Amino acid sequence: MQRLGKQSFTFENVYIDSFASGAGRKEREGFFGSYYDFVIPDMLFGEKSFEAAERRLFTETVKRVVVKSGKMIKDIDLLIGGDLLNQIISSAYTARDLKLPFLGVYGACSTMSEAMLLASMAVEGGYANTAVCGTASHFGAAERQFRYPLELGTPRTPSSQCTATASGALVVTGEKKRVRISGASIGVPIDFGITDANNMGAAMAPAAASTICTHLEDMGVEPEYYDLIITGDLGTFGSELLLDMCKKCGKDIKKVHKDCGAMIYSGLPNSYSGGSGCGCGASSLAAYFLPEVQKRNIKRLLFVATGALHSPTAVQQGESIPGIAHAVSVEAVEEYMPEITEDLYINMF
Amino acid sequence: MQRLGKQSFTFENVYIDSFASGAGRKEREGFFGSYYDFVIPDMLFGEKSFEAAERRLFTETVKRVVVKSGKMIKDIDLLIGGDLLNQIISSAYTARDLKLPFLGVYGACSTMSEAMLLASMAVEGGYANTAVCGTASHFGAAERQFRYPLELGTPRTPSSQCTATASGALVVTGEKKRVRISGASIGVPIDFGITDANNMGAAMAPAAASTICTHLEDMGVEPEYYDLIITGDLGTFGSELLLDMCKKCGKDIKKVHKDCGAMIYSGLPNSYSGGSGCGCGASSLAAYFLPEVQKRNIKRLLFVATGALHSPTAVQQGESIPGIAHAVSVEAVEEYMPEITEDLYINMF
Repeated sequence: MQRLGKQSFTFENVYIDSFASGAGRKEREGFFGSYYDFVIPDMLFGEKSFEAAERRLFTETVKRVVVKSGKMIKDIDLLIGGDLLNQIISSAYTARDLKLPFLGVYGACSTMSEAMLLASMAVEGGYANTAVCGTASHFGAAERQFRYPLELGTPRTPSSQCTATASGALVVTGEKKRVRISGASIGVPIDFGITDANNMGAAMAPAAASTICTHLEDMGVEPEYYDLIITGDLGTFGSELLLDMCKKCGKDIKKVHKDCGAMIYSGLPNSYSGGSGCGCGASSLAAYFLPEVQKRNIKRLLFVATGALHSPTAVQQGESIPGIAHAVSVEAVEEYMPEITEDLYINMF
Repeated sequence: MQRLGKQSFTFENVYIDSFASGAGRKEREGFFGSYYDFVIPDMLFGEKSFEAAERRLFTETVKRVVVKSGKMIKDIDLLIGGDLLNQIISSAYTARDLKLPFLGVYGACSTMSEAMLLASMAVEGGYANTAVCGTASHFGAAERQFRYPLELGTPRTPSSQCTATASGALVVTGEKKRVRISGASIGVPIDFGITDANNMGAAMAPAAASTICTHLEDMGVEPEYYDLIITGDLGTFGSELLLDMCKKCGKDIKKVHKDCGAMIYSGLPNSYSGGSGCGCGASSLAAYFLPEVQKRNIKRLLFVATGALHSPTAVQQGESIPGIAHAVSVEAVEEYMPEITEDLYINMF
């Protein structure tokens, strides 16, 4: 590793072994639809509550990503995960059910990049050979907890975003693979005084701009160094703000920027300002962007999951909503040749 | 570092530079009373709500620990913290107010040892030169969120524990100091089917026993290797369970075990099964135990913060409460000689 500035560093030997994603039926109709590993048949996924459905979605995604890596749950040394539910129960119950050593994190919708950078630290340092990082969110569970229960039928504002019912997980390892995690920048919470729980994009855009500009400066590169800079869930409104703010910092990222929240429901009716939720960025990364990196269609990708540290209690008490964003850079590995070991030949024949 | 078993590893170059703690007036009357760095005058600490008081308690503790290390906030590379409030707002707002790069964690009352082991990873790996880890809890805020608002005057059961109004924070650094973090074990969530939110000790004891026994086995040592094994907040009832469970695993820790929850209110009326809350273990460690390590009265200490991953929503939906515990070992550094640099002489005269 090499440390660059206060917030940024590089990784030398951290690879992504596999990626998996799951989503709901609405997400299935959206831009990333046919790329998800599985789609849940309804919002309850065979459970009695939205919360239990979110948990099952996360558990199934973790199982899936482990299966896709050709490993077994017992080969996993560590699960780093979090979600939007109070006390991050989806992740905690998943760790309990799969009996995995567990480090719970909370970064609202920035959780995926926080989990990725911590998993990378753990793998690069040798604290884990193989770590899973992941997250999930569920529309019904998030709306009930952060805004209004769906049963109320509360009207939505144009700036509102729809929490994606989706999850994404990665297996991170020290063994050489086709995709590597090459660096990261840890974000600082930034607060522009937003108090509207239906305007998360505006709460998160300043933090995203701060982290992206800091990352580019620390790494000493221009935006074009990356084929793509993807933000997690700023939505259409937040993305416009981000482009403006980055431009003011002298970094014009317009040509390389995409936002998973703006993409996930593109073309669908009633999608307002787009998707949100920690599962939005995580599932888009795992379903669509990482396969493109593996195919070398994208050679360098900066993934910036953005979180609004929104607490209904604090907002009711008059507090504003700070945003936070962590950046993780992902690269296609050149000249990757899989090592075919003898026992693999035996399994083949 | 050296990895020992799936869950455990050692650190070579991670030191605790300073420690600070704050607490409420009730805690001031208890066992650790005269050791806290500051005591808040009332439960509101000049704020309008218990939640805001908890946040201020945490912010002041972080400021205090930085001052005690002779550094300034701008010298801190990273804050790793969490708390019991939904969306860990106390930690997030503290990071926002102090403008610190922030990784939020949630491990219920195990948060302090989770934050310590992640900060150690970050420092050992060179991702941060100086990191602060810490946590806080507040009786009024926790009771309202997890059980009943205090205003209801709900009677308590004998197994219930009282969330400590307390906080603790450490500055962790790669520079040689008198106290070092020598190793850690990451816990697995364990669920014995407890559904009573007033019996956290029973929910956490199995996880504590699992982590302690795994740690001792991974390190290849007997309980007596440590001068003291301290658990965070099992309380009197949970501590008895822990001793029984460890004995059944062939590790008799009775002679070296102490529990911060059982100690914090010892001698006070209406203390039921003792104290709890992530601030309970963190403040006891920072106020009482680490100074004893620095004085070399304790040479080897194992700190095992224990968390009940209790979600009121999940419990209402019929789920049980899993426990989790992470262990961090702390040692007195032999032959420590402070390096007196020239500019220190100049400052002296």
